[in-house]
Amino acid sequence: MSKYDIIVLGSGPGGYVTAIRASQLGFKTAVIEKESLGGVCLNWGCIPTKALLKSAQVFEYLKHAEDYGLKVKDADYDFDAVVKRSRGVAEGMSGGVKFLMKKNKIDVIEGYGTLKTGKKVDVDGKEYSADHIIIATGARSRELPSLPQDGKKVIGYREAMSLEKQPKKMVVVGSGAIGVEFAYFYNALGTEVTIVEYLDRIVPVEDEEVSKQLERSFKKSGIKIMTSSEVTSVDTSGDGVKATVKTKKGEEVLEADIVLSAVGIKSNIENIGLEDVGIAVDRDKILVNDYYQTNIPGYYAIGDVTPGQALAHVASAEGILCVEKIAGQNVEALDYGNIPGCTYASPEIASVGLTEAQAKEQGYDIKVGKFPFSASGKASASGAKDGFVKVIFDAKYGEWLGCHMIGAGVTDMIAEAVLGRKLETTGHEVLKAVHPHPTMSEAVMEAVAAAYDEVIHL
Amino acid sequence: MSKYDIIVLGSGPGGYVTAIRASQLGFKTAVIEKESLGGVCLNWGCIPTKALLKSAQVFEYLKHAEDYGLKVKDADYDFDAVVKRSRGVAEGMSGGVKFLMKKNKIDVIEGYGTLKTGKKVDVDGKEYSADHIIIATGARSRELPSLPQDGKKVIGYREAMSLEKQPKKMVVVGSGAIGVEFAYFYNALGTEVTIVEYLDRIVPVEDEEVSKQLERSFKKSGIKIMTSSEVTSVDTSGDGVKATVKTKKGEEVLEADIVLSAVGIKSNIENIGLEDVGIAVDRDKILVNDYYQTNIPGYYAIGDVTPGQALAHVASAEGILCVEKIAGQNVEALDYGNIPGCTYASPEIASVGLTEAQAKEQGYDIKVGKFPFSASGKASASGAKDGFVKVIFDAKYGEWLGCHMIGAGVTDMIAEAVLGRKLETTGHEVLKAVHPHPTMSEAVMEAVAAAYDEVIHL
Repeated sequence: MSKYDIIVLGSGPGGYVTAIRASQLGFKTAVIEKESLGGVCLNWGCIPTKALLKSAQVFEYLKHAEDYGLKVKDADYDFDAVVKRSRGVAEGMSGGVKFLMKKNKIDVIEGYGTLKTGKKVDVDGKEYSADHIIIATGARSRELPSLPQDGKKVIGYREAMSLEKQPKKMVVVGSGAIGVEFAYFYNALGTEVTIVEYLDRIVPVEDEEVSKQLERSFKKSGIKIMTSSEVTSVDTSGDGVKATVKTKKGEEVLEADIVLSAVGIKSNIENIGLEDVGIAVDRDKILVNDYYQTNIPGYYAIGDVTPGQALAHVASAEGILCVEKIAGQNVEALDYGNIPGCTYASPEIASVGLTEAQAKEQGYDIKVGKFPFSASGKASASGAKDGFVKVIFDAKYGEWLGCHMIGAGVTDMIAEAVLGRKLETTGHEVLKAVHPHPTMSEAVMEAVAAAYDEVIHL
Repeated sequence: MSKYDIIVLGSGPGGYVTAIRASQLGFKTAVIEKESLGGVCLNWGCIPTKALLKSAQVFEYLKHAEDYGLKVKDADYDFDAVVKRSRGVAEGMSGGVKFLMKKNKIDVIEGYGTLKTGKKVDVDGKEYSADHIIIATGARSRELPSLPQDGKKVIGYREAMSLEKQPKKMVVVGSGAIGVEFAYFYNALGTEVTIVEYLDRIVPVEDEEVSKQLERSFKKSGIKIMTSSEVTSVDTSGDGVKATVKTKKGEEVLEADIVLSAVGIKSNIENIGLEDVGIAVDRDKILVNDYYQTNIPGYYAIGDVTPGQALAHVASAEGILCVEKIAGQNVEALDYGNIPGCTYASPEIASVGLTEAQAKEQGYDIKVGKFPFSASGKASASGAKDGFVKVIFDAKYGEWLGCHMIGAGVTDMIAEAVLGRKLETTGHEVLKAVHPHPTMSEAVMEAVAAAYDEVIHL
């Protein structure tokens, strides 16, 4: 029986990053993967979708070439080539993880791992043991009883990024990041897209003004949006699929080629031996403490199977922290209040901290500042005037409670707010940090200025 | 005679921003402008060049559409339309400043202002007085004796952005931000471009590795680069222009349609009455203290006419600080060591703080980390793998000495480093600020990790 210091179950952005950090810290490490190195994120999530979205974005440039003084005949796309490029990027990244495993002397055990008592893992009949076992099995597309996925006409994100044929009409159920990213992608390539959202606005976890802006931008680009609406049943018996939608005004039947179910995720906690080992679970999540220890000594869990935000960067951060703690380092628990979230449609969305409504609910007396990109020189020059930066400060102590961005390139701009908040910056310090001109990032400085009635360009 | 609290001479990004902040602080304010509101930056600098560069960048997408699974026939550009768009953006922004002046109740005095003793300014024969006069007259393209600009064949940045006809061949003298931006723009549209740089590398103020990367990217795109070379004379007598270049290997004559002189700037300090008032000048700059007071009470100077970096955002920050001090606010002097600089070619460059060579020269024991975008998932998905983020920390106290970025979108990413440095962050704090995945901004976190031997994706 092979013996390791650390075994990681699952090689997604939680698992493989954990394994690398463990190896750096001197642990003899193995990672168990049943499918492809890199997990959903690299193979069926973050990375390949960004490749698809880039193609869509470039296609939008082609369609609007004249706006930039350019000329183009017959702008077109090759759906197969777009998908193939995306698959190629994913394969390249997965190959990269393979290289990193080798370079860091991490054993990759291919197969289906099941936890056993006594700090052991069974992989298709073979047993491995370790001092520390870290569960990082991630999650999959959640299925609603009213919306069973057949993988053909009613699909999840996985199928949505490798369809053989572009659908003419598509219904996207759910308007979180995954839903709106696919809605944007397919609409940009000419599919007729309808978003059905149960709550009263799209991207409902975002600040309300962000939802409004995205709705405006999406409607302008031809996406249909039905909020406060619910798909109650689907009929796949005919050529296409008929989705019955309950709206405030009554029932409506949408006909489409494809219904994409993007209603959240379901943790992969079944059939991995949690019950045998006695690891405590609450509903869909494994219970852990600040250092990702489960109730059973020697067993840990990180990433989507634990209660924090189900995001790749959270999983990575948790895994690093988990093994640093095992190594005896003096670690600080992760601040789940300072985790950025990003959505990569056009316009992009990025946010961190409290929304305006949340800040008010929590009883803060707040100062709010907002700066629209329409007033930004760089945005004008780039032809990217949609969107804004909105900041929320605590009026009493000056704490930066939240930052909400929607516009071109904002997913690369939110890091400033994350670091600033981590360092307990005040608005005044952000204001006096000289932001380069002309950049989109000036909007952060200006939004803060607006919160303190010092805005220049409004 | 009209009397103001504050008169600002010049309405560039120094002047107009100063005027707005002055008005916010309750001062009766006027701004004097001899040409167009917004000065060089809005009308002939930062903004219109970014518009040109955006057209070039979109044109590159058109040319490489196949890389994204797209198809396009006859990708072409309309040079007039590209320039017209740029002029339109500039006019729009200048109109925006006009609106801001009106909204902030700032008097705009059109004409040529000359300083007079007794805190007065003469504008084409009419006198105005103020308690405080702020000089913000900016700068213009510097002319070398060996390279006199005729505005036709030997031109400065101003002509370069509004040429009636696209040159077939162009020599760009100087490889600072202005030089390389125009080199990139014209090359992207098919002009044969040669850069002649006096020093031994292009963008010589940047970290050496940044210079090397840009040289590699530029050469790949077909730009010719001659370093350690000097244009000793130009002959404009024939159809085109012949530039004699002294290189290490001897003399060479380059034939071109246009020679663009981009060898720096010259402050506008002549004929504005400095001598009459007795304001002290050292070489090309007006001498000021930390609050932009000249040696003569009541007269101040900000922006390109003063010794700090000649950048729009510096001018704005100086002007704001100057009037806040006049208003009696408790202001902190500007930290010129924490001013970001940006260059907007493709790849973009953004940097702040010390280069590696400077840090060593200053005797620091340093930790250096570098993360290439070729290892970034987002960069792969975007097809933007050129470039890297490089960070320099003081090994002893952990101070973030410098951050140097080259790659797609980095000009919007440098703000994180500026704010982090202002807040005296340590590398560990940057590392533990969770950067969203997948973004280009992760490269900052990874570069810091590399400096501390904790990098994951290398």
